[in-house]
Amino acid sequence: MRKVIFGGAISLDGYFAREDGSVDWLQWSDDVQKIMAEMWPRFDCMVMGRKTWQHAQEQFSEEDLEKARSLKSGMKEYVFSRTLPAGEMKGYEIVNADAGKFVGELKRQKGKDIMVMGGGELGCALIDAGVVDEIGFNIQPVLLGSGIPVWNLMSRQVDLDLIECRALKKGCVYVTYKVRNEK
Amino acid sequence: MRKVIFGGAISLDGYFAREDGSVDWLQWSDDVQKIMAEMWPRFDCMVMGRKTWQHAQEQFSEEDLEKARSLKSGMKEYVFSRTLPAGEMKGYEIVNADAGKFVGELKRQKGKDIMVMGGGELGCALIDAGVVDEIGFNIQPVLLGSGIPVWNLMSRQVDLDLIECRALKKGCVYVTYKVRNEK
Repeated sequence: MRKVIFGGAISLDGYFAREDGSVDWLQWSDDVQKIMAEMWPRFDCMVMGRKTWQHAQEQFSEEDLEKARSLKSGMKEYVFSRTLPAGEMKGYEIVNADAGKFVGELKRQKGKDIMVMGGGELGCALIDAGVVDEIGFNIQPVLLGSGIPVWNLMSRQVDLDLIECRALKKGCVYVTYKVRNEK
Repeated sequence: MRKVIFGGAISLDGYFAREDGSVDWLQWSDDVQKIMAEMWPRFDCMVMGRKTWQHAQEQFSEEDLEKARSLKSGMKEYVFSRTLPAGEMKGYEIVNADAGKFVGELKRQKGKDIMVMGGGELGCALIDAGVVDEIGFNIQPVLLGSGIPVWNLMSRQVDLDLIECRALKKGCVYVTYKVRNEK
């Protein structure tokens, strides 16, 4: 079965971005580039929440988005929304269905792994629903003090198995875990 | 000058304890015991928030608390409270003053290092006030989903320098940082 992976670069105090969505505080290094280059070919499907998607649409120019689309050719992208009408929009598939059930269905389809992009709201809902298989974070050496949180309330405790933990350049810490989803 | 250290064992989603204060989910190992045994002699002073203190008073028997006091002989303990009257109580010093200023004063006094016990409310207020020198966490392989948060809102970004990062037994990750307090 396809695996679902959630994660990204976060501040030590658990934010994906500042309150205005900016990520100017992220430390970048060839370590990170290598991890991303190795990880990218695993996926042929991305799921994201409407806010993450809308932020990306606003932040990047039409040209940038077009370039990104060509790089991601063959990547199927779903956006979960309660407000936008379901269907195709700008090359993305807008979905109104329950995210946990929908991603559960996607996992049973043939394909590569599925990446959950940004946004703790969707990520935690999917962990809570028991459909996330791995999580991984690049913990940055900074406390933002406020921002868009990675961690949202969940209805239950979820146990993890540490896969890897190592220091990256510039004080970053890379951790990956397997999620224990009881069958 | 004495150093102020904040930290403890936390869930990956940033909780010190469940909502009822329980820490039954903590993984314990000889690794952790060794870290604590090495760290303990650094300190002769502990500061904590009223909630953390009151929880400890409720959770442990008179006998346990008496035993703890004798182990910690020579340890000066301050409890910050806006509601309790200032002064000595059960061997602790209740303080109504501004925590940042008070701890800033303590640092200038002679003595060993100062430990900030549990409770993100006090810990983050002290980081925000620029008086915390080091932070360290034993990140446990669990998402609690809810609980008593480590991270509270702060008024500013605080940059960190990674000191150490290593895997402990049972999937725990130990990270320590130096806090960059601009002078």
